Amino acid sequence: MPDNVFVQNQWYVIGWSRDIGPEPYARTVCGEPILVYRKQNGEVTAMRDACPHRLLPLSMGIKEGDNIRCRYHGLMLDAEGRAVEMPLRSDRVNPALCARRYPVVERYSFVWVWIGDAARADPSLLPDYWMCEKEGWVFDGDTYFVRCNYQLLVDNLMDLTHETYVHATTIGQQELMDTPINTRVEDGKVVVERWMPNVPTPPAYRQPHLSGNVDRWQICYFLPPSSVVIDVGVAPVEEGATLENHPVRSFVIDAMSPETETTTYYYWGAARNTDIGNDERTQRTKEVQRQVFAEDLDVLEAQQRSLARNPDLRMLNFNIDSGGVRARMIIRRMLRTQADEAARGRNARETDAA
Amino acid sequence: MPDNVFVQNQWYVIGWSRDIGPEPYARTVCGEPILVYRKQNGEVTAMRDACPHRLLPLSMGIKEGDNIRCRYHGLMLDAEGRAVEMPLRSDRVNPALCARRYPVVERYSFVWVWIGDAARADPSLLPDYWMCEKEGWVFDGDTYFVRCNYQLLVDNLMDLTHETYVHATTIGQQELMDTPINTRVEDGKVVVERWMPNVPTPPAYRQPHLSGNVDRWQICYFLPPSSVVIDVGVAPVEEGATLENHPVRSFVIDAMSPETETTTYYYWGAARNTDIGNDERTQRTKEVQRQVFAEDLDVLEAQQRSLARNPDLRMLNFNIDSGGVRARMIIRRMLRTQADEAARGRNARETDAA
Amino acid sequence: MPDNVFVQNQWYVIGWSRDIGPEPYARTVCGEPILVYRKQNGEVTAMRDACPHRLLPLSMGIKEGDNIRCRYHGLMLDAEGRAVEMPLRSDRVNPALCARRYPVVERYSFVWVWIGDAARADPSLLPDYWMCEKEGWVFDGDTYFVRCNYQLLVDNLMDLTHETYVHATTIGQQELMDTPINTRVEDGKVVVERWMPNVPTPPAYRQPHLSGNVDRWQICYFLPPSSVVIDVGVAPVEEGATLENHPVRSFVIDAMSPETETTTYYYWGAARNTDIGNDERTQRTKEVQRQVFAEDLDVLEAQQRSLARNPDLRMLNFNIDSGGVRARMIIRRMLRTQADEAARGRNARETDAA
Repeated sequence: MPDNVFVQNQWYVIGWSRDIGPEPYARTVCGEPILVYRKQNGEVTAMRDACPHRLLPLSMGIKEGDNIRCRYHGLMLDAEGRAVEMPLRSDRVNPALCARRYPVVERYSFVWVWIGDAARADPSLLPDYWMCEKEGWVFDGDTYFVRCNYQLLVDNLMDLTHETYVHATTIGQQELMDTPINTRVEDGKVVVERWMPNVPTPPAYRQPHLSGNVDRWQICYFLPPSSVVIDVGVAPVEEGATLENHPVRSFVIDAMSPETETTTYYYWGAARNTDIGNDERTQRTKEVQRQVFAEDLDVLEAQQRSLARNPDLRMLNFNIDSGGVRARMIIRRMLRTQADEAARGRNARETDAA
Repeated sequence: MPDNVFVQNQWYVIGWSRDIGPEPYARTVCGEPILVYRKQNGEVTAMRDACPHRLLPLSMGIKEGDNIRCRYHGLMLDAEGRAVEMPLRSDRVNPALCARRYPVVERYSFVWVWIGDAARADPSLLPDYWMCEKEGWVFDGDTYFVRCNYQLLVDNLMDLTHETYVHATTIGQQELMDTPINTRVEDGKVVVERWMPNVPTPPAYRQPHLSGNVDRWQICYFLPPSSVVIDVGVAPVEEGATLENHPVRSFVIDAMSPETETTTYYYWGAARNTDIGNDERTQRTKEVQRQVFAEDLDVLEAQQRSLARNPDLRMLNFNIDSGGVRARMIIRRMLRTQADEAARGRNARETDAA
Repeated sequence: MPDNVFVQNQWYVIGWSRDIGPEPYARTVCGEPILVYRKQNGEVTAMRDACPHRLLPLSMGIKEGDNIRCRYHGLMLDAEGRAVEMPLRSDRVNPALCARRYPVVERYSFVWVWIGDAARADPSLLPDYWMCEKEGWVFDGDTYFVRCNYQLLVDNLMDLTHETYVHATTIGQQELMDTPINTRVEDGKVVVERWMPNVPTPPAYRQPHLSGNVDRWQICYFLPPSSVVIDVGVAPVEEGATLENHPVRSFVIDAMSPETETTTYYYWGAARNTDIGNDERTQRTKEVQRQVFAEDLDVLEAQQRSLARNPDLRMLNFNIDSGGVRARMIIRRMLRTQADEAARGRNARETDAA
């Protein structure tokens, strides 16, 4: 696998918990084909999706209890990826014969895999999606496959000015183009904050008690390497809402898992702390997001193709891009550190060998 | 964009005048994605089809009067490609912020764009399609997208011997294989001339007064870098037709605009100076051309694929290829001059910097 | 064409004899596009499938007697690939103008072409498919196009342990996983032999007189560069069958012709020496093979894709792979010899030039 294209030693979402059961489930993350499935004890396991024998995808295989048997020659691996039965049953099993395992954590409704050095896997490094599992909150969403680099998605989500035109009929409004943003870095997160006081309620927010003007806010948090969590809301103007005093809260959750340099699995959803037992409302919110993000998808894939067709042009950054710019700086710094570590590792091995 | 693949500092057709109105129209010419549209005053404008901000194709944008607004973040450009409104309306517009403009000329029923240095754009360098706008003549045609290099099309059009087999049922005839051609270069144009005295009328030319033998002529003109104009006609043998004395004239017009090295927009049509108010005849001629050129398309795309599959083989040139050979020599010379100029430009910049 | 990817100076199947008649038939073998057709005297001829003039595939051309005329400009070649008429019929035909010929042999129901130096073509180098033409035997089969390197097919056919899982419902059985194989090289052929005494009759072999346990054998022969012939059979246990004493014999025939490094034409069939006039049985056997090999196809194409997606992994060899391993060693040795010969040829030419 390429060393430097993706940020290593990080957790990436590989799927929704609800989609991963005992049957093989396969997805490529950061260029690495990975098989996951749920064991009988409920835990999820992950390994390289290639039989160590002749590389047939293990996801084409046959589950036997917690084991997976390759459909080509019948090599059987256990849930830790270790060979437990050879194609000729009388052949001795070499204990070193195994598929590479990936550390797994199941949290925030997602299954996450660790890309990088397994010895460094640490659940405390997960991005903090507290609103996805906190008591009194409800969270749901779905997945899109997008033919663009994941950083274009980060750019998109860290600048919501684009809602005016891309999402004109749902969450866009002209006032977005008149309201400056505040960008800062806090605790390793990039924050872009925009308050729109006393603006018309955008279409997707309209409800009987929210029909006139509202105060609207959008606070985007970039959590490295590839998550964006957005605090979004509107409140009647007379409430004088602040983040601290407003009881009704709602977040948009965006986890981007690069498949290749030009393709990304985009896991999106919404969390709220109000009316949480109302499944019909949860479903309706999900359908609005599905429509809104489909509009982004068209734009993002066209942008990716345009980047390839205009190799002489560079993207420019405006004020509205300050969040994406800082996110890219963080990613670039992580990649540089990673490259330095790799170089030091090579030097150390050469010194040892000398 | 690559420097040397296509002949720069030339006019290339980007579309039929009739197809270009106020709505965005986009096509890639010589590897450069270009947007064109017609302003309210009737003039056509052309600019790079990529928003200078994040490179989304401007052709996905929204027209507002003569301006175009990018559909992603709402940057608005005027018809000259200059930014006139930022996504955050309060942001200052940098006067240097613009999409690259392309000089445009509208002539001979086509919209032409200048590929190269805008300062050198000169309408007098347009290839001379006089028959497409002369009083007393009528001209019409259409477009094909062909998956081959444009020089294969030039080869094809500069040697009409191929009509015998490719167009056996329309304009081909065995006598083409028995009639030598005369090839020469005149005023920077390559001319291939073939007179077929006293031959049967080919199928597509048959009419009540042209049922027996005819004198047939084909005079192909290559106009650099990528146009071919062909004087074609038949006359009753007893007329002793010459180009000078024959009152009925008809030209095939071929403008090739390279999209990439292996794809080409082919704009084709026919002009005649007889029966010019007869729209039914104009339409019929266009349908014959549509059928004939579709036959060429099959052959040309197969040839392009075959070139890729037989990298060890080179095309050979026979006598019949003398027109295409000279056209290729002219193109090669233009590309060499272009490369020399580019090298001199680099040297000059280095000297200045020293 | 690339020098070293495929084993040169070998015969490769280009098609079934029954499919090759007077009309052009084209297929790429070892990266070389080849045209074949049958002459009026019944012989088959083969030449590069590109007109020596402008490289249009000759297979798009027009047959005129034993000649083929290019559909583009009408250059006519005879069945030996030599030009016999120019596009302008008055032009002199250069005797050197020709399409490269390929030596052809028609044997064992197939048409074979010689890839490499025509001067070294020798029918005695054909792989020995004696069972495909011996008196008292019947042979039939068909073709699959497979998107994998031909060596993956050789691996597959030289190890039949895979039948257990890939062909569970037809010819697979658990006992394959318990029965060791014997691998050896004999007369330049790799032989993998497996005898399964007293095992249940696998589904595809079940017949009224074969319903209980049987002795089953599989003897795979790899014939370089890309053929596998498999002696397969079952016999009632009480017969104590050996290859020498068993009167009923049946072979699976597999001829792999690489198209490119990742695509292969796979010609497969079965030969038997019993009930040979029973066409219904021949047809039924062919349909079983068609189903069985379609199952292989899925696996092989998934394996090829997985090799590309896991560039950091190498295939491992188990005992069951010993046949494929030795076949690959033979192929590697042939390629090395070929590279050495090419280097010596280059050196000799340089010495001559000095």
